[in-house]
Amino acid sequence: MSPVTQPTELPQPGREEIRIEQVLAALGDPVRLLYVRQLAEAPPEGLACGSVPLPVTKSTRTHHLRILREAGVISMRAVGTRRIATLRRDDLNALYPGLLDGVLGAPH
Amino acid sequence: MSPVTQPTELPQPGREEIRIEQVLAALGDPVRLLYVRQLAEAPPEGLACGSVPLPVTKSTRTHHLRILREAGVISMRAVGTRRIATLRRDDLNALYPGLLDGVLGAPH
Repeated sequence: MSPVTQPTELPQPGREEIRIEQVLAALGDPVRLLYVRQLAEAPPEGLACGSVPLPVTKSTRTHHLRILREAGVISMRAVGTRRIATLRRDDLNALYPGLLDGVLGAPH
Repeated sequence: MSPVTQPTELPQPGREEIRIEQVLAALGDPVRLLYVRQLAEAPPEGLACGSVPLPVTKSTRTHHLRILREAGVISMRAVGTRRIATLRRDDLNALYPGLLDGVLGAPH
């Protein structure tokens, strides 16, 4: 019987540690915003990080995901060799009501 | 009689040219956000750019104001030798409803 793999959450700021400047800077990049838009339309259980098509190399993708995670915009958990990302919608809406909707609904 | 000085608006993107990534990146800096917070509480006619206390040198201040202006976050007009800044609240609220309030109301 193979061992059961528990999901492990990667380090991230608690809600009280999230800072607006960092959230805005994390969102203020075309590649990261594209990623966040796709996560926003994903099911609540999230998306495998590698499954979102992004016009960047794997190491650049890893860099962008780390910035989003450390800013408190996304959560990432390791499930075996996969990384699953989810948008921290509840935390962002609680701290900054309207911000995420304003960003996701942006016409340009 | 001294000549009448007409206010001259410095170049800025029209509403249709404003891009969300640029707005977010412009706001995602502690000094620029401090400036925007103070502009948000200023009277509608705006603030003289030099009158807002910021913990930076004059050339750094000029740099930050240019980023805000080119992103479409603030307008600046020259009145004689002064620069008057205003927040482009109507444009931002029309494009990204909720975003500015979410940012300005941020607890941290």
